[in-house]
Amino acid sequence: MTQAEVQQYLNSLAKPPGSLGRLEALAAQLCLVQQTLDPHTTPRRCVLFAADHGVVQAGVSAWPSEVTGLMIRTIVNGKSASAKLADATNTHLRVVDVGSQSEALPPQSNYRFEKVRAGTRNLALEPALTEAEFQQAFTIGQDEANLARVAGCRLVITGEMGIGNTTSASCLTALVTGATVEQVVGRGAGADDATLARKRLVVAAALELHKQLPEAAQIPALCGLEIAAMAGLMHRAAECKLTIVLDGFVATAAALILFRQAPNAMKQIIAAHQSAEPGHALALAHLGLVPILDNWGMRLGEGTGALTMLPLLDAASAILRMATLGDVIPS
Amino acid sequence: MTQAEVQQYLNSLAKPPGSLGRLEALAAQLCLVQQTLDPHTTPRRCVLFAADHGVVQAGVSAWPSEVTGLMIRTIVNGKSASAKLADATNTHLRVVDVGSQSEALPPQSNYRFEKVRAGTRNLALEPALTEAEFQQAFTIGQDEANLARVAGCRLVITGEMGIGNTTSASCLTALVTGATVEQVVGRGAGADDATLARKRLVVAAALELHKQLPEAAQIPALCGLEIAAMAGLMHRAAECKLTIVLDGFVATAAALILFRQAPNAMKQIIAAHQSAEPGHALALAHLGLVPILDNWGMRLGEGTGALTMLPLLDAASAILRMATLGDVIPS
Repeated sequence: MTQAEVQQYLNSLAKPPGSLGRLEALAAQLCLVQQTLDPHTTPRRCVLFAADHGVVQAGVSAWPSEVTGLMIRTIVNGKSASAKLADATNTHLRVVDVGSQSEALPPQSNYRFEKVRAGTRNLALEPALTEAEFQQAFTIGQDEANLARVAGCRLVITGEMGIGNTTSASCLTALVTGATVEQVVGRGAGADDATLARKRLVVAAALELHKQLPEAAQIPALCGLEIAAMAGLMHRAAECKLTIVLDGFVATAAALILFRQAPNAMKQIIAAHQSAEPGHALALAHLGLVPILDNWGMRLGEGTGALTMLPLLDAASAILRMATLGDVIPS
Repeated sequence: MTQAEVQQYLNSLAKPPGSLGRLEALAAQLCLVQQTLDPHTTPRRCVLFAADHGVVQAGVSAWPSEVTGLMIRTIVNGKSASAKLADATNTHLRVVDVGSQSEALPPQSNYRFEKVRAGTRNLALEPALTEAEFQQAFTIGQDEANLARVAGCRLVITGEMGIGNTTSASCLTALVTGATVEQVVGRGAGADDATLARKRLVVAAALELHKQLPEAAQIPALCGLEIAAMAGLMHRAAECKLTIVLDGFVATAAALILFRQAPNAMKQIIAAHQSAEPGHALALAHLGLVPILDNWGMRLGEGTGALTMLPLLDAASAILRMATLGDVIPS
């Protein structure tokens, strides 16, 4: 399936060529990802990984770590933005606690408690994760991709909840893309000017501190457990040829990790949007991904950007099933 | 319900303020249109009006008038882009033939044959419609809004199928906004350079020919039956306080007619997108409407732009039902 073959099919449909604009470009992208002229966007699942970050001790976030646990409960109970958007798009949503500082919730079918450790270490002072811890979280992510595949999913979204995780994502983005601290640090979930200044100092210090580590240890040193798990999910989902819809800045940091290991996995990824976080545009460009929407200014995480754009992919898939000109106009 | 009240509610939700970006702006718009913090986008209906245009004789379109009838059949049979997008968004779709040159199709529940006349007269040579014909089509549109209301719809889309109708829409846009012929004439469903040049001459000649008519006769003289019916639907839908999602250039020409009669009706309208037709941006600006998406380059008509953007309104409505910060964080 080549771009030219897809374009020829799109031009054969019962409409003026190109008249559905970017919806046609999206349809073509979906055909190429799924290597068929009849791509499907259902069944689908959104897996959110949650974890805490030791670096919150350094004053990089507008919110305390306790909020991670409170939001896990809100998501599991179906009351978060992500849960409401998942409902609106008929997407199965589940949460995996890979490393929050909170206690386990009562068992529920959309919730998994599989904690590697209760939050990362403070990356400003020491490696956030060991290589073994990173691998453990990565493997949980791979498991979740296998579960999605067994459930018949054709498409997956992965997202995150973790107070402090844009600091980790900023470090990873700078490490992998070579961008400067100023380019990759933003306000995350609402940092004020003083917090933003601290966040920049912390990211710069962490990059300096850990660059002496062996290469294999550098990413774990700057990573979050939920970010490692997202990378694992996307790694296995790409191997299984699932379509992956990429959320915002933190999810894209996970994709940067995956890109180092398995650049071909990017062929399975459709970027949903370009977030308001300044490092996101850089990270997407590094991965060669063009977002469906680039001016929506979303920055919540939790898969919300991907869930919001998902119906545009449904629409793209739907138009491929319309009549051809040959069906409509008798020759 | 004021903008400030809506904003206060959005800021009370369990997320960093503004972190859902333009989805929050859209949620606010929906709240203001429906005058509630709990707006609904279902049940909903898309009513497509179809008609032919005598001006096609002047060589303004890439397609012959027969295509209108062929496309009516394709839509009714569920094989058009509009039908596939309606399916994908759980939107009831129906077609009303208010003036094609084709025979009636066999009766079907999603199809109404209520022809005012078999196509308009050639607006380049004589008035396309009399005032009485215009009013008859307008009333059919009002009926359809009543039917949608009786069916419990909270939201309606109206769209069109009619070979030659961008020529009529260009005339109406120039007449109502005062824009120049160059500003309002585009390639429609694929006019080549020669056709585009003819289309410009025809629009200029028609505007000149009919400007001597009494004001009440000018719009009918330049109008299409499907455009009059769309104006009638939006008129009555606005009176019933339904939410109206506005499609592209031709539907917006109908909104321009309505704007002259009932400018307050614009308060019920959310513009879905800005089409690739050059006159559309001007028309939206004249109406004070800001489209949800302005760079999707759609230009098919048939309600397809509105149907594509509809799930973004569903998402906007969904986030208003998420938890508040007060629900999540114990005080």
